[in-house]
Amino acid sequence: VIYSVIMVGGSGTRLWPASRAGSPKQMMKIADERTLLDTTVRRARAVSGERIILVATAQLAGLIREAMPDLPADALVIEPEGRDTAACVGLAAVHVASRDPDGVMVVMPADHVVGPLDRFAAIAAIAAELADRDRCLVTIGIVPRGPATGYGYIHRGEKLTGKFATDAYRVRRFREKPDRATAELYVASGEYYWNSGIFAWRADVILGEIASHLPEHDARLKRFAAAIGTGAEARVLGEVYGTIPRISIDYGILEKASSVAVVEADFDWDDVGSWSALAAHLPVDASGNAVRGQFLGIEARDCVVDVPEGKLVVGVGIQGLVVVDTGDVLLLIPRSRDQDVKKVVDRLKALGKTEYL
Amino acid sequence: VIYSVIMVGGSGTRLWPASRAGSPKQMMKIADERTLLDTTVRRARAVSGERIILVATAQLAGLIREAMPDLPADALVIEPEGRDTAACVGLAAVHVASRDPDGVMVVMPADHVVGPLDRFAAIAAIAAELADRDRCLVTIGIVPRGPATGYGYIHRGEKLTGKFATDAYRVRRFREKPDRATAELYVASGEYYWNSGIFAWRADVILGEIASHLPEHDARLKRFAAAIGTGAEARVLGEVYGTIPRISIDYGILEKASSVAVVEADFDWDDVGSWSALAAHLPVDASGNAVRGQFLGIEARDCVVDVPEGKLVVGVGIQGLVVVDTGDVLLLIPRSRDQDVKKVVDRLKALGKTEYL
Repeated sequence: VIYSVIMVGGSGTRLWPASRAGSPKQMMKIADERTLLDTTVRRARAVSGERIILVATAQLAGLIREAMPDLPADALVIEPEGRDTAACVGLAAVHVASRDPDGVMVVMPADHVVGPLDRFAAIAAIAAELADRDRCLVTIGIVPRGPATGYGYIHRGEKLTGKFATDAYRVRRFREKPDRATAELYVASGEYYWNSGIFAWRADVILGEIASHLPEHDARLKRFAAAIGTGAEARVLGEVYGTIPRISIDYGILEKASSVAVVEADFDWDDVGSWSALAAHLPVDASGNAVRGQFLGIEARDCVVDVPEGKLVVGVGIQGLVVVDTGDVLLLIPRSRDQDVKKVVDRLKALGKTEYL
Repeated sequence: VIYSVIMVGGSGTRLWPASRAGSPKQMMKIADERTLLDTTVRRARAVSGERIILVATAQLAGLIREAMPDLPADALVIEPEGRDTAACVGLAAVHVASRDPDGVMVVMPADHVVGPLDRFAAIAAIAAELADRDRCLVTIGIVPRGPATGYGYIHRGEKLTGKFATDAYRVRRFREKPDRATAELYVASGEYYWNSGIFAWRADVILGEIASHLPEHDARLKRFAAAIGTGAEARVLGEVYGTIPRISIDYGILEKASSVAVVEADFDWDDVGSWSALAAHLPVDASGNAVRGQFLGIEARDCVVDVPEGKLVVGVGIQGLVVVDTGDVLLLIPRSRDQDVKKVVDRLKALGKTEYL
């Protein structure tokens, strides 16, 4: 039986100052009037009904409960602190395995824009079926819309047999975010997918892979598994979780595991990893300005403007500028440098200006 | 005896959005913690004690009374509406003449940055003395600090005799704002001054000039003069003032009058006619950014930033950009185009967005 696992971690600092410590990217409304988290839960329901697990830190859990009062009572799994995705997946896998030893997990981040719902659900079901049948790790690979340099890529290998409604392949290799020329080669070859960060696997299979490749994770997760459902559960988790090494599921497991597959997906997918990416989800005026709020552009081109309701932005002769106003902060940065927003946040942290983070 | 006449008109739209209809440039704090109007009144007091007349529209008069409760009761002269500076000067002259037939007016706008106080007062006293002695119109000419293209210039003629503490000349000709090359010629010649817009003349002399050159003004001012001090004063002013043609004292009188002098002045003077000009009065960081508020610049150069207290502006890779935030409005415009702010205001007017004006 399938469980959706939603990873609500991730600070989304590249969308600062709209994404903040107290109100992170997952809580932003980007493509429509719902938060990314809300639409992710809707997708999860389409995959697994009420069998949903959200893994979040205590701070976010409070926000989530408030924002989504209709979540099942056992949906929230609290991480004592963020320890990267391998730990997060391991924690979720222990929960799933304790509920159903044959449980299959569909793992998804909470901060992507994905659609349409039915296409996503169909692909997720295929991924889960393949994961269960072959006891392998399944990634969902998005057919590239272009030579994007902001995503990781999956190089596919031999085609898997089976009567799936979409193609599935062995994974030959994972590739880091490429430069432009490399990305063009990838796309031209037809053998590469964008790595969506959405996965499917049996809980017992991923726990076995963790035991093989991440022994420090394994030891701590086993201590927790022994305590789950007992009065000691929270105490043991508090003791072990903070000592788990920080590593992502990609580096820690997927790049090392022997049996990894990719299911080809043609749904719309965007991790909205920058203000330029976010711009694609906003209305665009005749001069290429992507705007949320009130903008009067005079010889202004290709800007991204996101300001609160009621505020008027007048931009004269500006080009390719990101303009984000959150009331207490105004960010001005060229679109071409929008990956540096992360550095801005680091700088503010170093300056001790935590009230703006 | 000397009267200071402060013209509180002028919309200051080139400093929009900080300068607004309900809180115009005169009410801005630029060079220090006092408003421009407040420092202007201080200068006026240094020239003429409590003999001060502020000419303002009814809307501004309310603001002024509130901001400056210690003004003499008869200081405020209300214009039913703004009709440009010839009308404003004429109205003030009627008031001065009614109080003292030999009164000399020192006329100054309320929205300049001028200093130091004692240098200004000394020059103004000389200008008033010359105006009274020679029954001429006296302009105050600022020794140019450079080939500014944003000011009008005064070309001096023959030197006037007399034991004044500064040089005084006949005016040969007034010159409009020049282009850069022309401004350089002016400055190199040593014969040109910046036109400060600060004047001195006897009330009876300027009324005589108005009678000679602006008969429509003259007829209406004479009707008002006949009513001044009677119960009909306000009614008559209301009837005549709105029908006075709009023309400046410069075009209407100074460029036509036969006897115009210029007194050379070496005090600091700036009409703060643009955001770039205002920048000269703000603290400047090592990268040339003139900032009021909290600014974190990363590879940001030569910007002008004016934001409310508590707001953080982060600017990455921006150059020569004016960034003004007033809470409800954010203006972004290159310094090189800051004269276009006026056009922005016109555009907003045309769009009916009066709440932002």
